[in-house]
Amino acid sequence: MGWGTLYGVGLGPGDAELLTLRAFRVLSQVPVIFYPACGGREGGFALDILQRAFECVPMLGADGSPARGDAIHERCRPLSTSMPRGADAERPHWTAAAEIVADVLRSGQDAAFITEGDPLLYSTFIHLQTALAERCPEARVEIIPGVSSITAAAARTAFPLAIGDERIAVLPATYDPDALERLLDTFDSVVLLKVSRVLDRVLTILERRGWLANAVFVERCGTPGERIVTDVASLRGQRVDYFSLLLVRK
Amino acid sequence: MGWGTLYGVGLGPGDAELLTLRAFRVLSQVPVIFYPACGGREGGFALDILQRAFECVPMLGADGSPARGDAIHERCRPLSTSMPRGADAERPHWTAAAEIVADVLRSGQDAAFITEGDPLLYSTFIHLQTALAERCPEARVEIIPGVSSITAAAARTAFPLAIGDERIAVLPATYDPDALERLLDTFDSVVLLKVSRVLDRVLTILERRGWLANAVFVERCGTPGERIVTDVASLRGQRVDYFSLLLVRK
Repeated sequence: MGWGTLYGVGLGPGDAELLTLRAFRVLSQVPVIFYPACGGREGGFALDILQRAFECVPMLGADGSPARGDAIHERCRPLSTSMPRGADAERPHWTAAAEIVADVLRSGQDAAFITEGDPLLYSTFIHLQTALAERCPEARVEIIPGVSSITAAAARTAFPLAIGDERIAVLPATYDPDALERLLDTFDSVVLLKVSRVLDRVLTILERRGWLANAVFVERCGTPGERIVTDVASLRGQRVDYFSLLLVRK
Repeated sequence: MGWGTLYGVGLGPGDAELLTLRAFRVLSQVPVIFYPACGGREGGFALDILQRAFECVPMLGADGSPARGDAIHERCRPLSTSMPRGADAERPHWTAAAEIVADVLRSGQDAAFITEGDPLLYSTFIHLQTALAERCPEARVEIIPGVSSITAAAARTAFPLAIGDERIAVLPATYDPDALERLLDTFDSVVLLKVSRVLDRVLTILERRGWLANAVFVERCGTPGERIVTDVASLRGQRVDYFSLLLVRK
C-alpha cells in the first residue's frame, strides 16, 4: 500500500468562518487530524477553531450527510509541539513528532496537521514539515494556505495594508526599536506582530514621528476575546496579550 | 428603511476552493454582487473565481437548497474599475462607482464587491471604500479577508515565509533593484510581487549574492495557467505574466 498524504492546514486567525472551503473539505475527509498541543495541556487554539468551525457551518460532508463537530472530535489526536524541559535544540523533538505522523502515513492513511493562521507564516508546521522530509522523503505533503492574522486584523479595522506600489514590512516583537524607526522611513506600512513585549517603546517612536494617528492595535483577532484599539496612545503601560499586533501607516 | 451593508469580499488568489466559508455564505445571500470590470471587457478574474467556486462546491445555501452557479450569475453586476481614457486623477471615477453602490445600499439592500486575493492588500476595493466613506458615511462596510497570493504561492512551493522571529518584506515591482539588495540584507524573506518588469535585474542581484538557490517563482498562482519554477535562473530573458511573484530567502 502506498503512503498517505500529510495535509498542513491553515485554519485562519481564530474566526471559525474564516476557514477556507478546501480546509473544511479536507478536514471533513481525513481519518486522522493532529493538533498542536503544548506541554500537558489538552486542546489548544487550533483545536478550538476547528471545533467551532464544524459546529457552526451548515455544510454537506463528503458522503452527503451533514459534517458534525462530534465526528471531527473522534479523529483528532494531540501532537506535542512544546520542547521537553531543558532541551537546547528543537530537532530531536520534531523528529519524534514526525515519526508519529509518519506511522499514520506509512499505513496508507492520510492525515492533517492543523495550525492557526497560515502554515508557512510563523507556524510550527514548518518544523514538522522539515523533520518529516528528512526522515521520510517519500511522504507526500500538501499545504492549504490560510487567512493570516495580518489581513484579518486589517479587515476588522478597514486598514489599507498596501495600495498601488506600496511596500510592507512584517516584523515580530524581537526587533530593535531603533531599526523599526528606520524601517518606517522605508516602508509605507509596517505590521508589528506579538507587540506586547515592546509596546511602550514602539508607542514612543510613533509619537515622536507623528505616526500615532494612523496606527491601530488588534488583540486576539477573530476570537471571542478580540479587542480593537484605535487610540493606541491609551495603551501605554497596559499589559496586552501575546496574540496582539499593531498596524502602522505613515 | 435603513441602509444595507457593503461587504468587501476577498476571494483568494484564484483557486476557487480557497474562498473562506464566510465569503461563500455572504455571496450566497446578498442580492447584489458587484465585480470589478476593466474597460469594456465583460467578466474579469474575480468573477471567474466566483463562478468556479459556486460550480464546484457541494454546500447548502442559506435556505437549505444547494447554492447554484446560475443563481449567482443573475445577481452579478459589473462595476467599472478602470480609469476613463485621458483621466489624470482616480477620484472622480471612484466617486461615480461609489454612487452606483450607494444606490443599492440606500434602498436597504446589502451588496458585495468581490476582489481577488485580499480586499486591503493591493486591491481596488480600498479606493471604493474611501470614495463611499466620503459620500455616504452612513453606509456600513464589512470586510471579509481572503487568502493572499503570497501565502498561496508559499503553500504551493512549501516555501517557509517566516520562522520564529524572522522578518518579511513585501514589495511590488517598481522598487529600485539596488534598494532591493539592501532589503535582502535586513530581511529573512522578501516577496517580490508583479516581478515581470524587473525580473532580469533581480536575477542578476540574486546570482551575485548567492541567493538564487533559495528563490522560487510562481506565475498565476492557483489558476489553470499556474506555473512554478524552482530553477529561477532559467527565467532569464523570458516574458512572464503580470500576476507573477518571486519568493526569496537568504
